[in-house]
Amino acid sequence: MTNEQQSIRVNLCSSGKEKPQADQLAFGRSFTDHMFVMDYTEDEGWHEARIVPYAPLMIDPSAMVFHYSQSVFEGLKAYLNDDGEAQLFRPQRNFKRMNHSNDRLCIPPIDETFALKAVKQLVSIDKDWIPQAEGTSLYIRPFIISTEPFIGVAPSRHYQFMIILSPVGAYYEEGINPIKIAVENDYVRTVKGGTGEAKTGGNYAASLKAQEMAEEGIAQVLWLDGVERRYVEEVGSMNIFFKINGQVITPALNGSILDGVTRNSVIRLLQHWNVPVEERKISMDEIYQAYQEGTLEEAFGAGTAAVISPIGQLVWQEHMEINDGQTGAIAKSLYDTLTAIQYGKIPDPFNWIEKVDDIGENTLKATN
Amino acid sequence: MTNEQQSIRVNLCSSGKEKPQADQLAFGRSFTDHMFVMDYTEDEGWHEARIVPYAPLMIDPSAMVFHYSQSVFEGLKAYLNDDGEAQLFRPQRNFKRMNHSNDRLCIPPIDETFALKAVKQLVSIDKDWIPQAEGTSLYIRPFIISTEPFIGVAPSRHYQFMIILSPVGAYYEEGINPIKIAVENDYVRTVKGGTGEAKTGGNYAASLKAQEMAEEGIAQVLWLDGVERRYVEEVGSMNIFFKINGQVITPALNGSILDGVTRNSVIRLLQHWNVPVEERKISMDEIYQAYQEGTLEEAFGAGTAAVISPIGQLVWQEHMEINDGQTGAIAKSLYDTLTAIQYGKIPDPFNWIEKVDDIGENTLKATN
Repeated sequence: MTNEQQSIRVNLCSSGKEKPQADQLAFGRSFTDHMFVMDYTEDEGWHEARIVPYAPLMIDPSAMVFHYSQSVFEGLKAYLNDDGEAQLFRPQRNFKRMNHSNDRLCIPPIDETFALKAVKQLVSIDKDWIPQAEGTSLYIRPFIISTEPFIGVAPSRHYQFMIILSPVGAYYEEGINPIKIAVENDYVRTVKGGTGEAKTGGNYAASLKAQEMAEEGIAQVLWLDGVERRYVEEVGSMNIFFKINGQVITPALNGSILDGVTRNSVIRLLQHWNVPVEERKISMDEIYQAYQEGTLEEAFGAGTAAVISPIGQLVWQEHMEINDGQTGAIAKSLYDTLTAIQYGKIPDPFNWIEKVDDIGENTLKATN
Repeated sequence: MTNEQQSIRVNLCSSGKEKPQADQLAFGRSFTDHMFVMDYTEDEGWHEARIVPYAPLMIDPSAMVFHYSQSVFEGLKAYLNDDGEAQLFRPQRNFKRMNHSNDRLCIPPIDETFALKAVKQLVSIDKDWIPQAEGTSLYIRPFIISTEPFIGVAPSRHYQFMIILSPVGAYYEEGINPIKIAVENDYVRTVKGGTGEAKTGGNYAASLKAQEMAEEGIAQVLWLDGVERRYVEEVGSMNIFFKINGQVITPALNGSILDGVTRNSVIRLLQHWNVPVEERKISMDEIYQAYQEGTLEEAFGAGTAAVISPIGQLVWQEHMEINDGQTGAIAKSLYDTLTAIQYGKIPDPFNWIEKVDDIGENTLKATN
């Protein structure tokens, strides 16, 4: 399906909302002036692409998304570089993954090139909302919901593809400071043959209870595989890495782990630096043994929201303190390099950055 | 939390919609004139119960239900008896299960007694919508969605509890005629430690792909356990029963199977009839062996939507034809007895029926 020739109708709001103060940026609580919307019907395919003022949806109570959660989403960010340009980090991977999720959830594929064009145009229009303070950015949330008014269990025949934007600060209150993670032994996020590889709401709904039951001070739980309950899978909103005896290890993509953009970038950076890195099965027994032998040198999470989150304490059998509870050298280098590339402060040897052209506001207003 | 004293504000629509013809009743595509709505906030708990004209919701695009699928639902039916009274079948079990689902999904509990009162009042108001033809009924869909405008992964702090009603005919086009079911070997619905026991959208979203991949003519797929992929769990929208050598067997509730109201009623009826019935683990190997030995006498599904659905063909290793593809005697007796109780045609020895009192329309209009 190709929407490339399709144009995006733009309807600007008459007056913008007040923007949050730089020091009061929470994650995902305020949204910009505009949003992108596109509809799907069986007859017309994806159609009626539009950028309109951010506003509530009118949606039937029988819409399938409320009952059977047929939905997918993505998360990426726009950063402001020192020249005042907006730039995206590997956005093509997000839309490729969205189509992978769509396939698993029986949602019709989107045109990835067109989706990228839509993101760029929306970010350009709301560019004033990209915060400037260090560590802040504009979080971009593309998502698709099933909107057919029908309460039988079947794939929906109507969908809405939307993109909303939220100026954000640090994801964890701890920022780049080390967080505490507990291994989850009772609840399971997903299993091979399930939806773990897809970015779909049900995986996250399933994850809430474990977090609620976790002890005070636990930032996230670490999921084990659903079959043997031995192998590490991922953390709530991040992939996970361990450095053992000089080698970095991350769980291999096995069908139940999310193929993270930051995960992939970390692996490529480590390879570029000639740091040994392996994608493979890794059990909690192996990690615990390394801890006891003193070879568990670092642990960190990697994800779009938090970039790199060092893990200072990992709870399993006991409270394992890793690297004296301090941010490790590898985690620090990765964080510094990834954010420097994202904010355009250093060269981008991998061509990861996709710049957002300014759209003259006057041009837009003229067509409005 | 007790809402029993709380009254339900009623706002009737000025003119009703046209009702579908009795012979054109599909499942879940048309909805009645009114709906029940109630809000939750941390400060006020569940509040502002109201019955209002059926209408689209106004909901923020960042509402958590669209992103993280934190939602639960239930399904039950209202039947018209020969005296023209509306009656419900074991509705208390639905709201008890809803609270069980709520707990798993970190949604605050509802007052079960109040919810039943709300259903009765809503059904009474839209009583004219209960279809009269044989096999038809009014499907009742209570559901809760997370409505906080926040895209961080955490339990929502705002919810909406709604009840909508849909006049329905048979769930399967086949009606009480035997359906064809295929065992699913690749995809998994859920696993122990997951959300299988809860009635939450994610389980159903995960199930769509297997149905899409199934061969032509397959009405539903039969799920196996997510760990060993050997033991029978349930069918898409039903629990499953096998009759082997005179004994009826259904998978035991193991944490990943839905505790179906119809399932429980089937077990109690069989016990009442002194038919041997067992809840236990049952593997596909055992079923296939019984088939080969000629002792697999019947198979059927049990669920609110379809009541009892005989399984004429089960696909695993080969196309197993069960009871010559005909409805078995036990399935037929269960269907006849359950529907006769539901429609008030025979006595109700188990006190399963809950009658809905008529609310004088004049009384309502006076308070409107």
